[in-house]
Amino acid sequence: MKFTAEINVMPRREILDPQGKAVRLGLHNLGIDSIEQVRIGKHMTLHLEAANSEEARQKVEEACQRLLANAIMENYTFEILEGES
Amino acid sequence: MKFTAEINVMPRREILDPQGKAVRLGLHNLGIDSIEQVRIGKHMTLHLEAANSEEARQKVEEACQRLLANAIMENYTFEILEGES
Repeated sequence: MKFTAEINVMPRREILDPQGKAVRLGLHNLGIDSIEQVRIGKHMTLHLEAANSEEARQKVEEACQRLLANAIMENYTFEILEGES
Repeated sequence: MKFTAEINVMPRREILDPQGKAVRLGLHNLGIDSIEQVRIGKHMTLHLEAANSEEARQKVEEACQRLLANAIMENYTFEILEGES
């Protein structure tokens, strides 16, 4: 079966996010000044083959833990959807 | 009112994604070989103040069009949630 994983990898809250601060400043300079905080991370879309959604979930969990997210600096969340979106 | 915007900015499908290819190769080298495609983009979380959700939506739309996404190379999607998550 084909599955799609939608993964968000974000910097942990206690970690400084200079990129987020720079974007917030940029938005203020454009006059969009009601933005109070910006946090920037990665969004990844994976297409994978698996026998069922549980196996797909385990594979994505392993991918996140071993490569896609840095456990010290980042948190990850993901959603598994059937088919390829 | 306080709102949270969850924004995904992804490379357009027709655009090459060398970073995605490199990650897919990395996963295969780790033995996670049922991953057929990887696409990598940005995930942004914005906390903003707005009178209502429609105004929040317009501000986030403007932020995406003017700064957060490159209209030629990227697509963006977002969700507006009440409160600060």
